[in-house]
Amino acid sequence: MKKQFKAILGSIVAPAGFLASGVFCDIKKLGTGKGSNKGQKRDLALIVSETPATVAGLFTTNQVCAAPVKVCVERMKKGTAQVIVVNSGNANACTGKQGMADAREMVSFAEKTLALSAGRALVGSTGRIGVPMPMDNVRAGILAAAMELGPTAAHADCAAEAIMTSDTKPKQVAVEFKLGGQLVRIGGICKGAGMIQPGMSPTGARPAALPGGCPQGLHATMLGFITTDAAVEQKVLQAALTEAVANSFNRITVDGDMSTNDTVLVLANGLAGNEKLNAKNSKLKTFQSALSHVCLELAKKIVRDGEGVHRVVTVRVKGAKTIQDADAAARAVANSALVKTSWHGGDPNWGRIIDAIGYSAATVVEEKIDIGYSAAGGKKILWSLKRGQPTKATFKELCAAVASKEFELHINLNLGKANAVMYAADLTEEYVDFNKGDVTDASSLGG
Amino acid sequence: MKKQFKAILGSIVAPAGFLASGVFCDIKKLGTGKGSNKGQKRDLALIVSETPATVAGLFTTNQVCAAPVKVCVERMKKGTAQVIVVNSGNANACTGKQGMADAREMVSFAEKTLALSAGRALVGSTGRIGVPMPMDNVRAGILAAAMELGPTAAHADCAAEAIMTSDTKPKQVAVEFKLGGQLVRIGGICKGAGMIQPGMSPTGARPAALPGGCPQGLHATMLGFITTDAAVEQKVLQAALTEAVANSFNRITVDGDMSTNDTVLVLANGLAGNEKLNAKNSKLKTFQSALSHVCLELAKKIVRDGEGVHRVVTVRVKGAKTIQDADAAARAVANSALVKTSWHGGDPNWGRIIDAIGYSAATVVEEKIDIGYSAAGGKKILWSLKRGQPTKATFKELCAAVASKEFELHINLNLGKANAVMYAADLTEEYVDFNKGDVTDASSLGG
Repeated sequence: MKKQFKAILGSIVAPAGFLASGVFCDIKKLGTGKGSNKGQKRDLALIVSETPATVAGLFTTNQVCAAPVKVCVERMKKGTAQVIVVNSGNANACTGKQGMADAREMVSFAEKTLALSAGRALVGSTGRIGVPMPMDNVRAGILAAAMELGPTAAHADCAAEAIMTSDTKPKQVAVEFKLGGQLVRIGGICKGAGMIQPGMSPTGARPAALPGGCPQGLHATMLGFITTDAAVEQKVLQAALTEAVANSFNRITVDGDMSTNDTVLVLANGLAGNEKLNAKNSKLKTFQSALSHVCLELAKKIVRDGEGVHRVVTVRVKGAKTIQDADAAARAVANSALVKTSWHGGDPNWGRIIDAIGYSAATVVEEKIDIGYSAAGGKKILWSLKRGQPTKATFKELCAAVASKEFELHINLNLGKANAVMYAADLTEEYVDFNKGDVTDASSLGG
Repeated sequence: MKKQFKAILGSIVAPAGFLASGVFCDIKKLGTGKGSNKGQKRDLALIVSETPATVAGLFTTNQVCAAPVKVCVERMKKGTAQVIVVNSGNANACTGKQGMADAREMVSFAEKTLALSAGRALVGSTGRIGVPMPMDNVRAGILAAAMELGPTAAHADCAAEAIMTSDTKPKQVAVEFKLGGQLVRIGGICKGAGMIQPGMSPTGARPAALPGGCPQGLHATMLGFITTDAAVEQKVLQAALTEAVANSFNRITVDGDMSTNDTVLVLANGLAGNEKLNAKNSKLKTFQSALSHVCLELAKKIVRDGEGVHRVVTVRVKGAKTIQDADAAARAVANSALVKTSWHGGDPNWGRIIDAIGYSAATVVEEKIDIGYSAAGGKKILWSLKRGQPTKATFKELCAAVASKEFELHINLNLGKANAVMYAADLTEEYVDFNKGDVTDASSLGG
């Protein structure tokens, strides 16, 4: 399926009509603790479509929700946007009325700087919680970023770098494919390394359950910005993004903590010239697959670059009675401190896994549970437990199965037909060391 | 209130008519990985009442539930018991039919050895999951422990030591107090250091919510064994234990993982000669207070001795709309990897705390949340956040408030009248190192 999407360079500027930039305006310096990634420099990005674009978005369901998220949710109603301004180093969360005023000024200042009509800008922020935005720096940054805008892969690189916090590397993807006769492109950048277990909805409100079974109140700041030159109706774009995120960003966890700022936005400017995609268009499926592919590739990059992460584990639960059960079992395993430390140690400890399955909210029957391992993307499963009892797989074989930097954990509850997957990580001493804070630095108070 | 309970020596043998012993029968050696605490020796304990005692118990709500738990739940129906046999080093969990046969043999062998009628013994196990019980060792251990039974504090010490796994020290409490004219004693021992977030119910089945708001499916092996010479009706004893555990063992978390083996049992042999406590007896309140005090003291010892724990934090949530909300907010904070690492670092990071409150299942309003600190047991609260906004407390003052080995975190949601408390711990590099397993040792496969 994925082979129909050719990987290309340029990420967010690969689609026709997009420009990007990333500059340094000293926001990070003003909020630099151990946790805010000293040494990263660029801290303000602009992503611009040359023409007004259809927009869709998903936002954290955390009830403590940052000002930029609130501003985006308000502006989603228009269904059209042309620029996204993003800063790192300061989350503009828990900043009260001043924070809302600052987020609004970020969008209006970007609009004015780029000579766009009011309402055309969106905003994303990531970094310290509870620290007022250094607006002089932000304005200087927006002016500088507007001067630097360009359509090359180097410009996209700068933008991808400017949204990083504790990330060790920029995260970018782009693909091209045919829709009807037209060549269409989707590109994206994202960031996130800690405070990662997003649970996003289109309005930031908590739905009973998100598509794919993401429960209420689940939990980084992860930011994802996607561009495409496809022409897509707004409702169809929102539905496609919701579906793509349900199976990607909303299915990752580094530490089980959901941020106040999680945001994914997609801009579709239609410059590819395809027949506009609506719900009845037979090409929609291709677009959906491509968007889902881009989101999943980006989401996996976040887990791989998670704070202190040594191993990435895909947790696949099948045979649950309901999707909610499959999801609950997968999340319990993916977030268990004991399971995650055993992954770190390369220890094929099924006792901790079945324990976590047992205390999850999923209905399970011990005597029906299968647990096994495969290589990442591999189809051959080495079972360590069948129907609740150890198999004849040797300890050496099992150790080899969990020794790779990436592997898959397969759990079959054998009770029904519902499945869920989580992209998870181990828990290491480095994670603890990185996050225990730097109490020599008062700026660490907030985030 | 607590001053009416005089602390005394002897823990489980302090009450009249109780004997104890703890011996070494080499179960641990057979299941020794890094996680099973090399260097601990005694691994089988007996706790015996000279006369048949009224019994009550609470058991893990983990759906993957060990054989000894199943045997105890069955035997609770009798309402009477006289001996508890406990081993460490092997949890007898996920051991199938053989495990059930082994647990049944443990009780019947103990009964025969002590010349008691059938049905008088209960059993507890802790240690590796998925490893068959070494029954030759267990039988030898029961015989040796029966020979060693005695009524002195030294005997209780041996029993408390024999139930330890990764615990670094034995955990014991005893109090005496007057019920009417009679002097009554309650004593207890417990163990637990990792896989600690018990959620126990009287039958091991999941209730909609346990008293005190413990939700379904929450999550160690902790074992607690309590003795008293008070005379108490069985139903009243069960209710009193349920209430005491709801506010103690079910309110602790080290790592958020609930074990397959969590068990608390109380034996009340009536030898104090008090008028038998029933639901209408005015002395019941005093007994309840004493039992609750003993359980809470034991529970706190588990958190203080938690794997790798440096700091113990009492998380107090008040002002929630419902008890379930208060509980959800307290557990989200108490189990957040980011909050726990900040505690380790002595970092008064309120951003991570309000983030966790926001993603919890509790209904909260950012602009109403207060966050502050006090000394352990202290009444003076230093507020760092009031109504969602930072106070004038200085960073230095806040750092001092979280520098102690034990402190209290106060969260007021200002939405209602419901409260909840969690006794929690920091997350340290030592926890990760201890639990990442020892892959040179095949016995680490299970637990």
